[in-house]
Amino acid sequence: MKPPSQTIPSSANTNPAGRAYAVIMAGGSGTRFWPLSRKSRPKQLLDLFGPGTLLEQTVDRIRAIIPPERTYIFTHALLLKEVARLLPNVPREQIVAEPASRNTAPTVGLAAHEIAARDPEGMMVVLPADHVITKPVEFRRVLKTGLKFASVEGRSVLVGLKPRRPETGYGYIRLGAVSGELDGEKIFMVREFKEKPPFSAARRYVLSGSYLWNGGMFIWRASTVLRNFERCQPEMARTLASIQDQGGIRSSSTLKRLFPTLEKISIDYALMEKIKDIYAVAADIGWSDVGSWAVAYELNSKDGDGNVVPPNSFSLRSKGTLVVSPKKFVVTVGVENLVIVETEDALLVAARNSAQDVGKAVQELDRRGLKKLL
Amino acid sequence: MKPPSQTIPSSANTNPAGRAYAVIMAGGSGTRFWPLSRKSRPKQLLDLFGPGTLLEQTVDRIRAIIPPERTYIFTHALLLKEVARLLPNVPREQIVAEPASRNTAPTVGLAAHEIAARDPEGMMVVLPADHVITKPVEFRRVLKTGLKFASVEGRSVLVGLKPRRPETGYGYIRLGAVSGELDGEKIFMVREFKEKPPFSAARRYVLSGSYLWNGGMFIWRASTVLRNFERCQPEMARTLASIQDQGGIRSSSTLKRLFPTLEKISIDYALMEKIKDIYAVAADIGWSDVGSWAVAYELNSKDGDGNVVPPNSFSLRSKGTLVVSPKKFVVTVGVENLVIVETEDALLVAARNSAQDVGKAVQELDRRGLKKLL
Repeated sequence: MKPPSQTIPSSANTNPAGRAYAVIMAGGSGTRFWPLSRKSRPKQLLDLFGPGTLLEQTVDRIRAIIPPERTYIFTHALLLKEVARLLPNVPREQIVAEPASRNTAPTVGLAAHEIAARDPEGMMVVLPADHVITKPVEFRRVLKTGLKFASVEGRSVLVGLKPRRPETGYGYIRLGAVSGELDGEKIFMVREFKEKPPFSAARRYVLSGSYLWNGGMFIWRASTVLRNFERCQPEMARTLASIQDQGGIRSSSTLKRLFPTLEKISIDYALMEKIKDIYAVAADIGWSDVGSWAVAYELNSKDGDGNVVPPNSFSLRSKGTLVVSPKKFVVTVGVENLVIVETEDALLVAARNSAQDVGKAVQELDRRGLKKLL
Repeated sequence: MKPPSQTIPSSANTNPAGRAYAVIMAGGSGTRFWPLSRKSRPKQLLDLFGPGTLLEQTVDRIRAIIPPERTYIFTHALLLKEVARLLPNVPREQIVAEPASRNTAPTVGLAAHEIAARDPEGMMVVLPADHVITKPVEFRRVLKTGLKFASVEGRSVLVGLKPRRPETGYGYIRLGAVSGELDGEKIFMVREFKEKPPFSAARRYVLSGSYLWNGGMFIWRASTVLRNFERCQPEMARTLASIQDQGGIRSSSTLKRLFPTLEKISIDYALMEKIKDIYAVAADIGWSDVGSWAVAYELNSKDGDGNVVPPNSFSLRSKGTLVVSPKKFVVTVGVENLVIVETEDALLVAARNSAQDVGKAVQELDRRGLKKLL
């Protein structure tokens, strides 16, 4: 094992965090927090894990390393106004409404061009806008290490999460040998990616100790991203370059014309599974993608009966129940392990252990043409 | 056993139904249908068992025997306007707002005076306004028989219900010997009354076959009622006579002044347990006092999964659940045997087998000073 000082050539940035740019992916439109989440108010704009929305928390969490002036938000047109309202400190031109949903690869490419144009040695941190991280200090420490390590041209660094259960809904990163150590943090080689494994495999991964959850957090130089696009996605790279030549993220007419022509593909499939020189750090940062109401329940503090209930409620012989009701007074009597969510026009009552199926119910509403409930 | 013809003296009315007057007790203010039922909209004004409210159904059910012109409604001031709106065919002066809740005895006395003044040989049928009767034809048949039998001065006739379970929340009528048979219907002597027995006793009553549920339905001549008041409640009888002398139910100022001075006591305690010459018919009329949301569930028709749900709802893997939601779209996922009731300002989610405790929750709201939810 080489000592880390030998793995970082002298050409790397001496203060990589000082030239780091955040690329926050805020275009998600999940259905699993229905009826609170809607097309016009997806998970990242909910303040269930307050204070503030998950998006605001994401921006605030990195502020000590990457200030709003170097933060970019990518979202979609429906959310643009609300995102801008929530983030007055992020320059308006750095909040980008994608004219079509094209998954993560096109967004990362677009951002890399913008950042490389602004700073040829600029570093890029890609972060989802809708995750919870309960240990922000530890997160920033890992981020700084990752930035330092990724400041060498050609390297890609993933912030992976130590798996806590055999989750079948996540992607896994299979770790190889330790490449080095930096600031007391082990940097692993990445051997391969495993998308949403069956339960038996997931269990094996967790027990082996050599897998991490892939939380969609990437660190690299913008120039490395662009080079990787040219190598792995030459067609997309050409269109991305063409967009950049015609104004990039600052020209909404260019975006409207060319962005929808890009292939709809994730950064994992487009680049990560094809490139070499990928590394991962194993972060223990209290991460959760809050994928369902059941997780929202877990993340909130409970009363003596294990209920998460607002002040305008009364529980009689009820246990383990999450109540979200901004306006109505809610009374529960003799119920257990429910999720009860009430909004202006809809009400959800679900068994907590069925919360992952709320999305299916929403699909049914869609099928029935109940657009205004979506 | 004497043949019934011998038990009816020739002085009885030849067409008692023709001089029958209904006295409908619509002053109840239950809490067990919260949040749909409120102080201003108690059970008798709910249309959960439609078409129409329970009050309307009560009036309509007897119409073929007792038309609205001979129907009286006793309610309280808060409900007067709504009752009058629902029953345009009942003469307005026959809808009486009691200035205070005094239980059933004072109401029955007041009504007896009014009816006796209108028709000295008038018959009186006392009926609660908030019960369900699914066999109205059978009910009317029993009513006619009861009227015929009770047309002899001095007799009191109860319409009792064949008990279907060892219910501890009801009063029971203990039957004596069969006094006679009329129109093929056995008329029983009443031996005694048992109020809300413990479970073991209730079970014994049901198994014995010699008890009926007391559903609060009485038939007698108005003159018999007045005579019984004079005998058993001489003080109340004097005040009732005084009210009648000063305008009776037609003088709201008299009612306001004197009605609240009457003792708060049920007709059962005031008269029934003291008088002789009481009879009962055992009615099999699909009766229910719909005492809780659980009963409301039982009385409604269900879908294939045993759910009672409105059209604006969607159930995924849910069973045995009652949903009442006039406005919101309701989605249930993976829940069983719940009662979900949503109104403008409140939401109830209860286990169906805990539905009888909804009243306790409402008491707690009262204790907390949440008056506008009551």
